[in-house]
Amino acid sequence: MIVVFEQGADKSRVDHVVTLIREMGLREHVIVGTERTVVACIGDERKMDIERVENVPGVEKVMPVLAPYKMASREVKKDRSVVPMGGTLGASAGGKKIALIAGPCSVEDRVKLLEVAHAVKEAGATALRGGAFKPRTSPYAFQGMGEKGLEILAEAREQTGLAVVTEVMSIEQVPLVAKYADVFQVGARNMQNYNLLWAVGEQKKTVLLKRGLSATLEEFMLAAEYVMSRGNSNVILCERGIRTFESYCRNTLPLAIVPEVHRISHLPIIVDPSQGTGHAHLVPDMCRASVACGADGLIIECHSDPEHALTDGAQSITPQGLKSLMVSLRKIAAAVDRDI
Amino acid sequence: MIVVFEQGADKSRVDHVVTLIREMGLREHVIVGTERTVVACIGDERKMDIERVENVPGVEKVMPVLAPYKMASREVKKDRSVVPMGGTLGASAGGKKIALIAGPCSVEDRVKLLEVAHAVKEAGATALRGGAFKPRTSPYAFQGMGEKGLEILAEAREQTGLAVVTEVMSIEQVPLVAKYADVFQVGARNMQNYNLLWAVGEQKKTVLLKRGLSATLEEFMLAAEYVMSRGNSNVILCERGIRTFESYCRNTLPLAIVPEVHRISHLPIIVDPSQGTGHAHLVPDMCRASVACGADGLIIECHSDPEHALTDGAQSITPQGLKSLMVSLRKIAAAVDRDI
Amino acid sequence: MIVVFEQGADKSRVDHVVTLIREMGLREHVIVGTERTVVACIGDERKMDIERVENVPGVEKVMPVLAPYKMASREVKKDRSVVPMGGTLGASAGGKKIALIAGPCSVEDRVKLLEVAHAVKEAGATALRGGAFKPRTSPYAFQGMGEKGLEILAEAREQTGLAVVTEVMSIEQVPLVAKYADVFQVGARNMQNYNLLWAVGEQKKTVLLKRGLSATLEEFMLAAEYVMSRGNSNVILCERGIRTFESYCRNTLPLAIVPEVHRISHLPIIVDPSQGTGHAHLVPDMCRASVACGADGLIIECHSDPEHALTDGAQSITPQGLKSLMVSLRKIAAAVDRDI
Amino acid sequence: MIVVFEQGADKSRVDHVVTLIREMGLREHVIVGTERTVVACIGDERKMDIERVENVPGVEKVMPVLAPYKMASREVKKDRSVVPMGGTLGASAGGKKIALIAGPCSVEDRVKLLEVAHAVKEAGATALRGGAFKPRTSPYAFQGMGEKGLEILAEAREQTGLAVVTEVMSIEQVPLVAKYADVFQVGARNMQNYNLLWAVGEQKKTVLLKRGLSATLEEFMLAAEYVMSRGNSNVILCERGIRTFESYCRNTLPLAIVPEVHRISHLPIIVDPSQGTGHAHLVPDMCRASVACGADGLIIECHSDPEHALTDGAQSITPQGLKSLMVSLRKIAAAVDRDI
Repeated sequence: MIVVFEQGADKSRVDHVVTLIREMGLREHVIVGTERTVVACIGDERKMDIERVENVPGVEKVMPVLAPYKMASREVKKDRSVVPMGGTLGASAGGKKIALIAGPCSVEDRVKLLEVAHAVKEAGATALRGGAFKPRTSPYAFQGMGEKGLEILAEAREQTGLAVVTEVMSIEQVPLVAKYADVFQVGARNMQNYNLLWAVGEQKKTVLLKRGLSATLEEFMLAAEYVMSRGNSNVILCERGIRTFESYCRNTLPLAIVPEVHRISHLPIIVDPSQGTGHAHLVPDMCRASVACGADGLIIECHSDPEHALTDGAQSITPQGLKSLMVSLRKIAAAVDRDI
Repeated sequence: MIVVFEQGADKSRVDHVVTLIREMGLREHVIVGTERTVVACIGDERKMDIERVENVPGVEKVMPVLAPYKMASREVKKDRSVVPMGGTLGASAGGKKIALIAGPCSVEDRVKLLEVAHAVKEAGATALRGGAFKPRTSPYAFQGMGEKGLEILAEAREQTGLAVVTEVMSIEQVPLVAKYADVFQVGARNMQNYNLLWAVGEQKKTVLLKRGLSATLEEFMLAAEYVMSRGNSNVILCERGIRTFESYCRNTLPLAIVPEVHRISHLPIIVDPSQGTGHAHLVPDMCRASVACGADGLIIECHSDPEHALTDGAQSITPQGLKSLMVSLRKIAAAVDRDI
Repeated sequence: MIVVFEQGADKSRVDHVVTLIREMGLREHVIVGTERTVVACIGDERKMDIERVENVPGVEKVMPVLAPYKMASREVKKDRSVVPMGGTLGASAGGKKIALIAGPCSVEDRVKLLEVAHAVKEAGATALRGGAFKPRTSPYAFQGMGEKGLEILAEAREQTGLAVVTEVMSIEQVPLVAKYADVFQVGARNMQNYNLLWAVGEQKKTVLLKRGLSATLEEFMLAAEYVMSRGNSNVILCERGIRTFESYCRNTLPLAIVPEVHRISHLPIIVDPSQGTGHAHLVPDMCRASVACGADGLIIECHSDPEHALTDGAQSITPQGLKSLMVSLRKIAAAVDRDI
Repeated sequence: MIVVFEQGADKSRVDHVVTLIREMGLREHVIVGTERTVVACIGDERKMDIERVENVPGVEKVMPVLAPYKMASREVKKDRSVVPMGGTLGASAGGKKIALIAGPCSVEDRVKLLEVAHAVKEAGATALRGGAFKPRTSPYAFQGMGEKGLEILAEAREQTGLAVVTEVMSIEQVPLVAKYADVFQVGARNMQNYNLLWAVGEQKKTVLLKRGLSATLEEFMLAAEYVMSRGNSNVILCERGIRTFESYCRNTLPLAIVPEVHRISHLPIIVDPSQGTGHAHLVPDMCRASVACGADGLIIECHSDPEHALTDGAQSITPQGLKSLMVSLRKIAAAVDRDI
């Protein structure tokens, strides 16, 4: 942590900060520059309360040196984590094989779900996505089938061996979702629902954590840290687009986060090009781009009849479209020494 | 709802959309323009599934005409709502009197909390803020005193008559918080935690709903609608800053939302200049600006010893600072025909 | 400047950075922490090439300590600058009196311009705004009257004594605009048109510099520094809204910049609530908020017949509206110890 | 254009809008809905002044139906344009072959420039980038070598056959740059410097137009339209990252714009992953992603000694790095039926 003082700050202010630093069990290094005095702290600054130092009169700014997360950091674990997803097809994220998770936005009908599950498996998916509890912007919109939807997902796993990935929206739903699903998805709107993060951190199943619409990378890593700090290290990060001024797409999909996460963390990161763009016609190209830049997986909305989908049909591609997309994805994966 | 077709879209596409519109119980109006065909829907488009229409091949875009919220809209209630806050000092938001809610970011110590409560009351506040459950970006940071903090807040109300405003972070906390608090605060990170919104909508106390960091105004209104749709109309909206590229402040405080909410809704809107800027030195001027543009209240972090505050000291002003701020706030309130 | 090394960075990397620092005429201070090595530079870091240091393998990040601007900084001039604007009414920005600049978006008609000029003067304005050269998003839109418009503005000054503020869009226009105008406005889209900044820095008239739509505060100050570094210190900063995800307004108006500029700079800052919101119905409240938070002036689009305005009528208020707005502005100005 | 009226808007307001529509040579279609009245305009709405209609009291909002650009639109030209770039290697953008433009951020030294030119040619580039006039945020930073730099670039073309791509910052520089360069680059900060756009539209050489940091896609297309409307159709669009709240990268690179531009326009679009991320370690993966999603070219900063580069070394890769990057780029290009 580096403390920068205002020009001409009184020596007593500096002494006060030094006292604070020592109180917190760190050591200080005072540097009197030509224009400013700067104090560097030595020790584990994560123990320090930055705001307390920021409040000292005469302090201009405080700049952290260390990242505030630990368990999610690559500094504590150099090797990339391979996170298992369940099912009987060996689904996992983080290894050489790129995970393909596909399925409808929400579960709407047993027959259709089973049909799409078989179709995405045939196209190459190892996991099935589908919402039984749906976070909807409007209270008047379809909110999901609930437990009935979970049962249908479990039946699809039985028939296909696909791992089941589904969203959990609140703590009360955790036991219910655990009964049926293999992977708990925490949605973008709940990325900083800390009580929910703790709850999924206290159970054993893998957590697929979606980035919040305006979450910084540091906040995203700290959300993973919330889960991991309760004992569950099986976290898969998922980029699903951020909110910007852009209007030709529902969200802006910032793919540079993929190599950046690989640089700072051992956790796998997958991409959701369906939510990340909001338009089916942009999905195939963004799938290709994601694989090309090193994504550990894709989660794709796929619906056999997008026009009649009750939620997010606009961003769904058909199983047929997925199958033909796989042709180029396999070549691109090979180009970056991966399989899909 | 207006459906715009692609240039040269086939008539069969248009007919298909017309069928969909009729299926949903609306009537259509087909307009064949020089470059495009456009179909206007007549009836309550809130019943329609926009995405289903967006998915029809040949549809370029679909533009909603009506706002998707109803109970929060000014169209259903022309008069501004005056929302009571509790306590014995007549605290409320939305009337001629501007609500002043002040207190520490989090409850940290009984003696200090009681001291600051008396001080803010003396300065003119009618409600006391203070967190017992604190949403923190890092799992390693101080998370609040929990029930012990709530007890202290209730004791402060007993002594001062101030209404108690405090955050609820999850459904399980609702009964506990209800036992002690007057107003449930739903924080920015939980603005789209829909299960929580329903839970606070099903109880009777007033809800102070903070805008999410990247929530659009429509999403903000729909979050209020979630609460109201469960029977609780006592909602106070709170602008607390949005996330942008700006870096001299923690958040960007967009005050134009105040007159805009007054135009489209009957609900009161207050401003949080402490969270909204992140720096104590910007708070007084932003309080003045908020009152000048018509805010129905202010919620201000106030701490007798900001330097030692465990959370958010950087954005706290002292009770003394608050008192001197009130001098100009009273004059500005008078200039816009309000009291504070 | 603080150089932070990666965990476990080789000593040879640190030595290399030390050599670079000395080559640039600064001194270094090496701090070996428990997790990282950090090097602090002593001397005027503005001379240093940060990117060169960032490129050294093993360097994690480089954090500047000093602001990169000087002439615009409050550190070189503690007193606030009062910048004259011309005309015969004593127009200026930065003193106790708040500058009121009003007029149409663009000059469209001699008779109407003269009429509105008299009206805004009567309402209390000391300067007249009006575009003769208009930057338009579309090449097919009305681009302004050019020199003819400038002549009309000058005639209005003759009749009223109002200072004339008008936009200059390119270097070639500088002599022409100088012939008629009192204040050169550099628009938001040209805030980083450095050749234009130099050109207006080399002449003597006051420059009203609008913030770019996505310019950081530092970039804004550096744009002022471009002008000042060529000899012209008469710069008025103008906040006119930034681009964010918000859609109920054309731009998001971040008023906290007003007190922040006063903290870091001696230059005056005014606010443009017309461009800053894009809607006439939001303008009066944002004028009030601007004055309340300390703005040194307002620049307002005012049109006697907004509905027929060729540009930006949507954000124009009428002279009558301006006059009634002044009643509350005067009271608010008095509350913050200013006049208008 | 669709005009939506406020609830309960007076019939006289509707009649007035109808009059305006007819005055502008269009026809109207009035639809009286259950909650609102809506008027659709028939004819070329680009002739209409939207703001004039927005200003009519009682109008809630006006929604355009048609895109405001024409020459850049795919509706006027279905086939993709192949834009020549000059040099003797057949450089062009928009065809099956992906353009590779590489070179240093700025020209700094004759020997080094010639060296890097030969190296990038060998790696597969057909065009050389390098700035002789550099837009710099600070007036105190290196501003480029000017004409001397242009001479060196021309010498490099002579030796290698590479097309020369270089930035033009102001109208005065146009003849000078035209003397030496093959392609005029208009930088992100000048994307809405309309006078400059006209000037490059009036000469014959190809224009590489970079997207502004906060330009919408529509504004970007309209900037291209500015150039094309003056007779120069040889425009190459370039995505170089936008400004968002993200801080791990200098800019956020939104690749979904590539397929979207291909959908709406016939112009080629290339990507600048160097500016688009700001960090050399993110460049290779973003190059791979760009090619995978269909980019018509890449413009990459490449420097033989990035650590000593006077500008933007942090985002430069070495010629050696470029060469090894090409191995995977060729495979990815083949996967999407392109060459590089």
